[in-house]
Amino acid sequence: MFKKIAFVGLGLIGGSLAQAIKNAFPKTEIIALARSQTTINYALRQKIISAGTTERQKFASILKDVELLIIAAPINNIVEYVTAFYPLVSEKTIILDVASSKQEICQKLSNLSDKFIGGHPMFGTEKTGIKNADPQLAHNAVFVLSPGSRTNKLKINKLKKFIGKLNMRPLVMAANLHDQAVAAISHVPYLTATALLRLADTPEKKNLAASGFRSSTRVGESDPQWGLEICQTNKKAISQELAALIKNLKKLQKNIKKNKTAELLAFFEKSWAMRRDIYQ
Amino acid sequence: MFKKIAFVGLGLIGGSLAQAIKNAFPKTEIIALARSQTTINYALRQKIISAGTTERQKFASILKDVELLIIAAPINNIVEYVTAFYPLVSEKTIILDVASSKQEICQKLSNLSDKFIGGHPMFGTEKTGIKNADPQLAHNAVFVLSPGSRTNKLKINKLKKFIGKLNMRPLVMAANLHDQAVAAISHVPYLTATALLRLADTPEKKNLAASGFRSSTRVGESDPQWGLEICQTNKKAISQELAALIKNLKKLQKNIKKNKTAELLAFFEKSWAMRRDIYQ
Repeated sequence: MFKKIAFVGLGLIGGSLAQAIKNAFPKTEIIALARSQTTINYALRQKIISAGTTERQKFASILKDVELLIIAAPINNIVEYVTAFYPLVSEKTIILDVASSKQEICQKLSNLSDKFIGGHPMFGTEKTGIKNADPQLAHNAVFVLSPGSRTNKLKINKLKKFIGKLNMRPLVMAANLHDQAVAAISHVPYLTATALLRLADTPEKKNLAASGFRSSTRVGESDPQWGLEICQTNKKAISQELAALIKNLKKLQKNIKKNKTAELLAFFEKSWAMRRDIYQ
Repeated sequence: MFKKIAFVGLGLIGGSLAQAIKNAFPKTEIIALARSQTTINYALRQKIISAGTTERQKFASILKDVELLIIAAPINNIVEYVTAFYPLVSEKTIILDVASSKQEICQKLSNLSDKFIGGHPMFGTEKTGIKNADPQLAHNAVFVLSPGSRTNKLKINKLKKFIGKLNMRPLVMAANLHDQAVAAISHVPYLTATALLRLADTPEKKNLAASGFRSSTRVGESDPQWGLEICQTNKKAISQELAALIKNLKKLQKNIKKNKTAELLAFFEKSWAMRRDIYQ
């Protein structure tokens, strides 16, 4: 569907997507800009990309016939990259990012939304880097698309079809709704995991930490820089959802203190049912 | 090491332990009291037990030559079971429970601690029931032992050796230290998961909930009745650890609001390092 695709960034997300594309479209040419030559060499050896560079100027010079440009860089770098590469690609090119906050990026790039479409593939692990990349992570994941006011419907439809061919589920969603949702189901759970980890502050606690603590805190091992950037770029929604979480915890605290048996049991049962509803 | 072992309760924990014992000691006779005949029938068919009943009187009548009596019942039933069965077993018998709160139980049973030893095998899943039992869950898990003032050292040593033969790691720990530790690494993470689940209150949020939310909330699907009983029996330590968690979350809330970049990054980096320290 796209003859030539370029990646800016080949970390866990970029690398996994590139591999998924290569698996689904073996004839598509993929090129990449990455921060380290080690990453480029690894991607070349794995035959994920056909060419790659760490030099931005060199990358810019080969963008002309790229049909899809995927910016899989840290959140805080997206706007700058899109702005810089926008004039270098054709009218027909789609520029897509994969950052986990969308509203700020989409607002800042709204004037470029004839080419730029905000994206967020809902997969990942606490690991980073192309060596942990795995197209199976992307399998069946939702891929959120937040087009702008200048985005052509045909581009959206082409991208949706393409994402479907990668065995992912495209979902068009307004950037503000996306950001509120990920604040609740990704960003605040990350913050919570980092806060929970601080409780394991004695040898006894560390010693007894078993599979439950392991899964409860897994996302707390995500890249700290990512953690910072979600706080910066999704501040409002995170603040709201974090306040809601603290309110819930205080309610539990009060009910435990006052031995409110029925209230506690009802709370746990409702949460139990909500999880079954989502995951089963 | 024990010729005959009896279980009160054959749920996920009791069932997994019984299977682990059967694997390590095929000649040991295992009998059980369970709430449902279905459980007994399943355990008989799987050859985990050689005899079982749902009738307490019948079970009591066959306890005399039992060398190890494991009470794998809900937390709130432990004291009553131990008190009732204590006179029916010999001086040499060890009565062991597996409840995840220890201090209250061990205090109430301190007079019976010549036979009773508090125990807590640190494994489990959000699932319940013998059909989800799996001796692999127990593999390499820590098994906390909290003996009382009247417990004979020889009994502790025999139990430690037995637990080692089950490929678990015995760890003698005072009940109060145990309870503070599990409040931090099990009980409060459970409460947090139930509170996090309530954030997923819109179709968009449910739709975007991916692998991160899944693992962050996994323990929130534990039995609600268990959730209630830990709050009732480990109230003080849970209250302390929950207050510490809320304090951490409020600190994050304040630092996000005030754009305290360095503080946020330092917090995330420290938590990241703490997790690596525990699990790698």
